[in-house]
Amino acid sequence: MTDIEIAQQTKMEKITQVAAKLGLAADQIEQYGDYKAKIKLNADQAAKSFGKLVLVTSINPTPAGEGKSTVTVGLGDALAQLKQKTAIALREPSLGPVMGMKGGATGGGYSQVVPMEDINLHFTGDMHALTTANNTLAALIDNHIYQGNHLNLDPRRILWKRVLDINDRALRHIVIGLGSPTSGVPREDGFDITVASELMAILCLAENLADLKRRIGRIVIGYTYDKQPVTVAQLKVTDAISLLLKDAIKPNLVQTLAHTPAIIHGGPFANIAHGCNSVLATQTALRLADYTVTESGFGADLGAEKFMDIKAPVLGKTPDAVVIVATVRALKMHGGVAKDQLATENIPALKTGFANLKRHIASMKRYGVPVVVAINQFTADTAAELAELKALCQQNNTSASVANVWAKGGTGALELAEQVLKLTAQKTEFLPLYQPEMELEEKIKQIITQIYGGRGVEFSAKAKRQLRQFKQQGWDKLPVCMAKTQYSLSDNPKLIGEPTDFTIHVRELVPKLGAGFIVVLTGNVLTMPGLPKVPAAAKMALADDGTISGLY
Amino acid sequence: MTDIEIAQQTKMEKITQVAAKLGLAADQIEQYGDYKAKIKLNADQAAKSFGKLVLVTSINPTPAGEGKSTVTVGLGDALAQLKQKTAIALREPSLGPVMGMKGGATGGGYSQVVPMEDINLHFTGDMHALTTANNTLAALIDNHIYQGNHLNLDPRRILWKRVLDINDRALRHIVIGLGSPTSGVPREDGFDITVASELMAILCLAENLADLKRRIGRIVIGYTYDKQPVTVAQLKVTDAISLLLKDAIKPNLVQTLAHTPAIIHGGPFANIAHGCNSVLATQTALRLADYTVTESGFGADLGAEKFMDIKAPVLGKTPDAVVIVATVRALKMHGGVAKDQLATENIPALKTGFANLKRHIASMKRYGVPVVVAINQFTADTAAELAELKALCQQNNTSASVANVWAKGGTGALELAEQVLKLTAQKTEFLPLYQPEMELEEKIKQIITQIYGGRGVEFSAKAKRQLRQFKQQGWDKLPVCMAKTQYSLSDNPKLIGEPTDFTIHVRELVPKLGAGFIVVLTGNVLTMPGLPKVPAAAKMALADDGTISGLY
Repeated sequence: MTDIEIAQQTKMEKITQVAAKLGLAADQIEQYGDYKAKIKLNADQAAKSFGKLVLVTSINPTPAGEGKSTVTVGLGDALAQLKQKTAIALREPSLGPVMGMKGGATGGGYSQVVPMEDINLHFTGDMHALTTANNTLAALIDNHIYQGNHLNLDPRRILWKRVLDINDRALRHIVIGLGSPTSGVPREDGFDITVASELMAILCLAENLADLKRRIGRIVIGYTYDKQPVTVAQLKVTDAISLLLKDAIKPNLVQTLAHTPAIIHGGPFANIAHGCNSVLATQTALRLADYTVTESGFGADLGAEKFMDIKAPVLGKTPDAVVIVATVRALKMHGGVAKDQLATENIPALKTGFANLKRHIASMKRYGVPVVVAINQFTADTAAELAELKALCQQNNTSASVANVWAKGGTGALELAEQVLKLTAQKTEFLPLYQPEMELEEKIKQIITQIYGGRGVEFSAKAKRQLRQFKQQGWDKLPVCMAKTQYSLSDNPKLIGEPTDFTIHVRELVPKLGAGFIVVLTGNVLTMPGLPKVPAAAKMALADDGTISGLY
Repeated sequence: MTDIEIAQQTKMEKITQVAAKLGLAADQIEQYGDYKAKIKLNADQAAKSFGKLVLVTSINPTPAGEGKSTVTVGLGDALAQLKQKTAIALREPSLGPVMGMKGGATGGGYSQVVPMEDINLHFTGDMHALTTANNTLAALIDNHIYQGNHLNLDPRRILWKRVLDINDRALRHIVIGLGSPTSGVPREDGFDITVASELMAILCLAENLADLKRRIGRIVIGYTYDKQPVTVAQLKVTDAISLLLKDAIKPNLVQTLAHTPAIIHGGPFANIAHGCNSVLATQTALRLADYTVTESGFGADLGAEKFMDIKAPVLGKTPDAVVIVATVRALKMHGGVAKDQLATENIPALKTGFANLKRHIASMKRYGVPVVVAINQFTADTAAELAELKALCQQNNTSASVANVWAKGGTGALELAEQVLKLTAQKTEFLPLYQPEMELEEKIKQIITQIYGGRGVEFSAKAKRQLRQFKQQGWDKLPVCMAKTQYSLSDNPKLIGEPTDFTIHVRELVPKLGAGFIVVLTGNVLTMPGLPKVPAAAKMALADDGTISGLY
């Protein structure tokens, strides 16, 4: 059976029942149909203290697949089976990859969140609200320039790009305002994917509506002809943009196949953005549940680093344990095996590829947080390979557990859940990677040397100029959000396994004052993906009764 | 008090209670919060026969304001007060005008539909689903060209444009695919506003999901280098685009301030599209209520003509009465009075301006349908002016009634409602304006001479060429959707009142085979509006508790 077939044959509980498991009454949620809801802001205020937080991350992704969301869901269901009051906190899928290559992001097999079609398609409209707010701001900026340009904005130095929740490479570089004098002022522009937008980052970091407004007002939309930054507040449309997000800011509630509550909210990609679900959603889960299982995007070098250094300070909570997801297949690829050879047992390649996992274990332990490896079992894995991987982790003083969550759901992750319960009972001392007052360059170097295992950094002439400018503006005290390929610890997607002695090349810095960080663009990472030759869209079908198939 | 203040101080009924008034059980709707719902498809199938249909239209709009939606809501509430089982069927507002100049479209004063903020902003996400489906198709088209262009699409002859639900003149004419060989194939392109899209027309004309798919498959996306049309079905993504609309196709249920059920669904502009709410919504209302009050966009020359000639044949029902909304103020403007002079009594100008209303009365009567004029009262109207306008209508053998719906809600439209009840009790014979088998040119001439009161039509060289091509393709048997300024019966917005002896200039034809009509572009009508110097967005405010003000 396919994932969608498994999902469709499951009888869901009414969302009011799921809410009740978290102590939420019917009037504390807003239903979106029978199986989705938004949790009203402050619905969690009765419970002030936070439960335990488990962060799920992974090795660098490979075409072999790791299944981080699947493990997150399976682990949550396992904790619920062990009679723990559990909530899962995930990111919302982006439609671009759903229609493109990656597919959805609702887990797989018997470890899924449902209704999977709705979650993967429009869900409760958060992405669309973000797209609309983003592009309304863009229209207001171009209209300002067209109507006299009172703020003296330089059309060549507009930072605010338009967005769509679609993989559309033809919109990366465009020229707008053509045609006639009444159709705007011509300038170069481009679209990013919505999940890369600053508004998405803001939505995921805002603590409430007042904070959302403050952050939106601070956004730098571009520069004047005198190279002075111009903000949304100066354009006087802070409230209009904010009110377009008044519902999107509320966390969404759904359920797993085993009816464990899942709060799914916000979804920035971790390669081009900060890669974590919303602070509000995680806080809500932490207040309402004893155990919150959340994930961060792509490998620990991207999502988990940003969780620790960008999200945790706003969240007011660091993880009580980190689960690193690895698979035998993926580690064999990191060890040099081709995708079509993965079904064959290959212990030497596994040993070589383990270096990638080892690097991430070290990175996470550096934060002073207990680590456990979840070995996500695939059918072709041999007993010898699974045993070898477990042994390699143990030799590395790290507990590991084989999880069979795709086939068995929570039952396949009971051992992992027991290990998590043990680890989170420990007292830990969180060690931040950098302090705000450190120079931007130093922060970037800390990430490269201590998390990526690289040697150092090389800045382009433009980036060097920006470092000076940002210091003058006082922006150098902000955290750093690296934009880097997810496939390698380095900025070269081909250097899999554990590259060493490499340098990260910084092309450009982008100030995101609303989000409250500086984006550091490295390598050739794209902020607008493209579609593959045969897009996933081509395989989807809709029956006349509304049933969807071919959605992954 | 402002409209939004009146709306916010009203205590709404739970949407389940509103649904119950139409005989809908809780499991026949999908709640979106407490006060909005989607009506499940086929929820109305138990009731097979249609009730009476009242179509509200108006004179050509002026800056003085006519208040068609306000009258529609007030009339619906009045019918409900008279103990008739009533449903109101409106279009969904577009965010572009909400943020721009026109404001929302939820009525005004004590004749509003609520929750007005939600309806005017994202509502249940239908617009966003359409925008997403439209732009996903655009990305798939450009990706097809980029990935080898197996269908031999000519990038210079792509008909499918991108859309946003935003007024953004800078996106009217753009060049895409720039930057590098991996960022697509460069070509000229442009964005329309979502309400002008063919998908919006399709959503509003589709009878069910199967029909939606058929229509989407038929869409002509462009031409090959050999000038042969290429459809969505040939691109093999009909289902992927359709499934993005599987929820948007369901009609939305809300309520008036007096708790009369209002079904609000689909919202094409009448100047650049067909201007009527969805067939499914109107059918649902007709099946569930004894009286359905619906409106069509802009003046009777646009919205009502398209209702009669495009929507009614699909709907399977023609209006039992037409209400033409007029105001003393607006008719004085049609009579030549400047906007700042409207507060002064001016009977001669009213008499001159009446010519505009007279034209629309004649146009509507031509269809064999009973007509009543609703005089929407404004505070500055004098008793003499109101009496004069009523007398002018009566001299014209047309009943008229002064409605004071802004200040009094349904109570202000009781006389109008009584007249409507009387008119709809008559037996009528509908006389279509044209037959499908007539030539395209003949259909256009019928509209111009019989509805606009013009002399004839002049085709550009391009339009003449297209007339021949469309005939060869067999597309000439489709109905016509005129794209024309709303301000004048002619194609020149400055010719207000009742212009005569004018010619309509047809620039271009656009085949919309999915919608099932040919769009006829006249004058300079824009399919992507722009923002004014001071957009409505600049006046909006969001309080920290989520309360919105300054939204109109």
